[in-house]
Amino acid sequence: MSFTLRATDGAARRGTLALAHGDVETPAFMPVGTAATVKAISPDELRGIDARIILANTYHLWLRPGRETIADMGGLHAFMSWDRNILTDSGGFQVFSLEARRVLSDAGVRFKSHLDGSEHEFTPENVVGFQEALGVDVAMALDVCVKLPATPPEIDEGVRLTTAWAKRCAAARTRERTALFGIVQGGLDERARARSASELVELDLPGYAIGGLSVGETREELYRMSRFTAALLPADKPRYLMGVGTVRDLIAAVDGGVDLFDCVYPTRCGRNGRALTRTGDLAIRNAAFARDPRPLDERCGCVVCATYSRAYLSHLFRADEMLGPRLLSLHNLATLAELMRDARAAIESGAWATFRDGVFAEAPDRAAVAKA
Amino acid sequence: MSFTLRATDGAARRGTLALAHGDVETPAFMPVGTAATVKAISPDELRGIDARIILANTYHLWLRPGRETIADMGGLHAFMSWDRNILTDSGGFQVFSLEARRVLSDAGVRFKSHLDGSEHEFTPENVVGFQEALGVDVAMALDVCVKLPATPPEIDEGVRLTTAWAKRCAAARTRERTALFGIVQGGLDERARARSASELVELDLPGYAIGGLSVGETREELYRMSRFTAALLPADKPRYLMGVGTVRDLIAAVDGGVDLFDCVYPTRCGRNGRALTRTGDLAIRNAAFARDPRPLDERCGCVVCATYSRAYLSHLFRADEMLGPRLLSLHNLATLAELMRDARAAIESGAWATFRDGVFAEAPDRAAVAKA
Repeated sequence: MSFTLRATDGAARRGTLALAHGDVETPAFMPVGTAATVKAISPDELRGIDARIILANTYHLWLRPGRETIADMGGLHAFMSWDRNILTDSGGFQVFSLEARRVLSDAGVRFKSHLDGSEHEFTPENVVGFQEALGVDVAMALDVCVKLPATPPEIDEGVRLTTAWAKRCAAARTRERTALFGIVQGGLDERARARSASELVELDLPGYAIGGLSVGETREELYRMSRFTAALLPADKPRYLMGVGTVRDLIAAVDGGVDLFDCVYPTRCGRNGRALTRTGDLAIRNAAFARDPRPLDERCGCVVCATYSRAYLSHLFRADEMLGPRLLSLHNLATLAELMRDARAAIESGAWATFRDGVFAEAPDRAAVAKA
Repeated sequence: MSFTLRATDGAARRGTLALAHGDVETPAFMPVGTAATVKAISPDELRGIDARIILANTYHLWLRPGRETIADMGGLHAFMSWDRNILTDSGGFQVFSLEARRVLSDAGVRFKSHLDGSEHEFTPENVVGFQEALGVDVAMALDVCVKLPATPPEIDEGVRLTTAWAKRCAAARTRERTALFGIVQGGLDERARARSASELVELDLPGYAIGGLSVGETREELYRMSRFTAALLPADKPRYLMGVGTVRDLIAAVDGGVDLFDCVYPTRCGRNGRALTRTGDLAIRNAAFARDPRPLDERCGCVVCATYSRAYLSHLFRADEMLGPRLLSLHNLATLAELMRDARAAIESGAWATFRDGVFAEAPDRAAVAKA
C-alpha cells in the first residue's frame, strides 16, 4: 500500500491510495456492502460509477456466511465477484451498538448474535485474522466506540483500550497485502482525541480513521471534531472519517482534511424512496413527481438520470417495485461519486474554496427535502 | 405487423413476427412486466438476454399509474424506457380472477380496484382505447375467462361473449401500429374451443391467443387443449399460449404448434429463491448450496452463471439481500430465452423431435426440485 498526496488546497487534500486491487483517487466515498453486497446494486454497476473501493462489515460476515465459507470460496473478492478494493470494518462499532448483548473486557468483547443469540467473541487478534482470511485490502483495528454523552473517565477508558487493542492488532498481522488502519476515538473531547491520535500515530500504521463520530452529535460538533482530529494525523497517510455520507457532510469533512468516507445513507435513502441531489433530497413518492418528466437531477450524469423520469421512478415506488430501490440506490451512489470527482478536480485546480462554498450555498441541511 | 413462417418440424413452428418495435423470433417467451417493469430487472438486462418483446398488464396499469400519466410521458415504451416490443393483455383475466368484486354484462365488466375499492368498467372499446393510448405493439381483445370446472352452458356463454367482444374490439381499433390479437376460449371442451376458434378466425385478426388454460387443469389437459386449439388456428398467423412458462410446458406447447408464451413463473420463482434449469429447479436456500462453488447451471450462458456461485446466491437469499431475487430472476429469464433459442435452432435444422425428447428426458415435473 502507498498513499501519494498529489495536491492540497487549504486543508483539503487530493491523493491516490494504491492498494492491492488498484488505485483509489481521494477524496473518495466508499459504498457500503454490509453483507458482501452493496444492497440492490451489482458489481458491474459499481464499476459503472467508477467505485474503486467498497466497505463490508466484519460483524455481519462473521455471523453469516462466516469465515470458512468465504475462505472456501477464495476470499471476499471472489465470493462477491468484486475485483476492486475492499475495506472491512473491525466489527467494533456494530458490537458496541448491541449494548445489552455484549460484555467488554481487556481481552476483547463477547456478544450475542442478533440473528440467533449464539455467543461470539471479538479480540484484536481474531478480527485481524478474520479480515486477513477474507483477503481484504484494508482491515480496521478493533476499537471501543463509547456512546455519547459519556463522562471523561468513560472516554479515557475507551481511548486506553482502543490503543491497547490497536497494538495487539498490529502485532497480529500476517498478511502483507492487507493494510491495517487504526481508529482514533475520544468522543467530543479534544484532549482525549489528541491523546488517542498521538498513541496511534506512534504505531506508524499505514492509515488512520476518525471513529466515534456521526453517532448523533450536532453537525457543528461533527465538523469541529473531524477537522480537529484530521489535523493531528500524519499528512502522508490516508484519513478516513467513518459513517459520513451526505453532500454537505462530505464537503465539510474534505474541507477539514479527510480523504475517505463510508455511509449507508445513500443506499438506505435509495431503498426508502429518497433521491440525493446537490440541492437537496427528493421524496420520490411525493405527488408532485407523479407526472414529472424530468430526471431526478438534471445536472447528474448517471445512467438513471439519463434513462428514467421522476414520474416513472415515482410509479415504481408507489407500486412497490424492486426496480425503484435499485435505481434510486444507484443514482444516490453516483451522486456522491460525482461529488467526490468534482471535489478532486477543484482541489487539483486550486479552486476548492469556490467549489466548497458553491456546494454549501445549494445544499440544504440534512433534514430538509427539496421542493418539487 | 407481419408473421413469416420460416420452418416447421412436425407441428413445431419457427417464425418471425415483425412488429412496430422490431422482429420477434419465434418460438419466444415474453417476460412479464405487470406494472411497467419486469420485476427487479432493468431494460438493459432484458436486452442482454435478447428479449424482443415483453408483456404488461392492462388491469394493473389502468389502476396505477393510469392512462393519462403514461400517455403524458409519451406512451408505455418511453415511460419504462423499453425500446423493443410490448404486448398488453386486455385485463380480462385479472378482472375475472377478482370474482366477488366484478359484475359481468354484455356491455362489459364492472369491477372494484384491489388497491382502493374504486369502481371501474372494462368494455371491449375502452380496453382497446387504453392499449392504443399506451402505444403498445400488440393489444389483446377483451375476453371472458370462465373458471374451471364449468358447466357446458357456462362455457358456451363465455365463448359467445368472447366472440362478441372480439368483434367490438376489432371495430374499435384506430391505430395501425397496434396489432389486435383475439383470444380463444372454451375451457377443456373441444367442441367449445372449435366454435370459439372458428368464430374468431372469421374476424381475420393478425394473431390469436389460447386463453383459459394454465389455470389449474392437469398438465395432460393443458397439453391436449393447447395442441388441439393451435391446430384450429391459421398457419400464417402467430399463436400465443397465455400463462405458460416452465421448461417442460414450453417444449410441450411448442411441440403442439404454439409460437409465443408469457408467464410470471420465472420471475416469481426468482424472487422466491427458486432457480430454473433444464434438469429441474434449485431451491437456492437449501443447505447443500451454502458452499457450492458451481454456477446455478453449468450449461447456462447467462451473466449470472458466468459471475456468481451457488454459495454466494444462497448467501444473498439467507441474508435477505435484494441482489438475490434480482440475479435469480435474470437467470430464470435467461434460461427460458436460451431454451427458446435452442428450440428455434432445432426446428430450423429438422432436429426438433430429438431436441424435444432430450429436454423431456432431463426435465422433471414442475413440482420436483433437483437434488443438489
